Amino acid sequence: MSKSVFYHAGCPVCVSAEDEIVSLIGESQVEIVHLGETKGRIPEAENAGVKSVPALLTPKGNVLHINFGASLADVKG
Amino acid sequence: MSKSVFYHAGCPVCVSAEDEIVSLIGESQVEIVHLGETKGRIPEAENAGVKSVPALLTPKGNVLHINFGASLADVKG
Repeated sequence: MSKSVFYHAGCPVCVSAEDEIVSLIGESQVEIVHLGETKGRIPEAENAGVKSVPALLTPKGNVLHINFGASLADVKG
Repeated sequence: MSKSVFYHAGCPVCVSAEDEIVSLIGESQVEIVHLGETKGRIPEAENAGVKSVPALLTPKGNVLHINFGASLADVKG
């Protein structure tokens, strides 16, 4: 596995995190997977150790669970 | 602000996350701050919105709180 995989579910917090991750790591280095739209990939994510979204599966196979400490404004957004 | 800042406190989970972040973003693109050893920088981290460690302050000023969903093995490590 040479790329990271960013799993999300389309929530505003996920999208903000996605923008940050893509700009930090580089678009070519990360595959974006919307688990709400591609539910068939949920088992793969679970097997990789994803417990919540957004999460970044790294090329080394570790899962970084990411959040902003979401504010209510984010959730309302 | 052109670099990201990775705040941590030396715990095993933090160190694992640090390794991943450094390899994903690149060592030259991120400043590592050990808040346990440089407590004088805690107010700066708080002002930036850091609620827990490990956390990554991005060049855009957003804070990504990161964890692995730490296993007991990590905590024991």
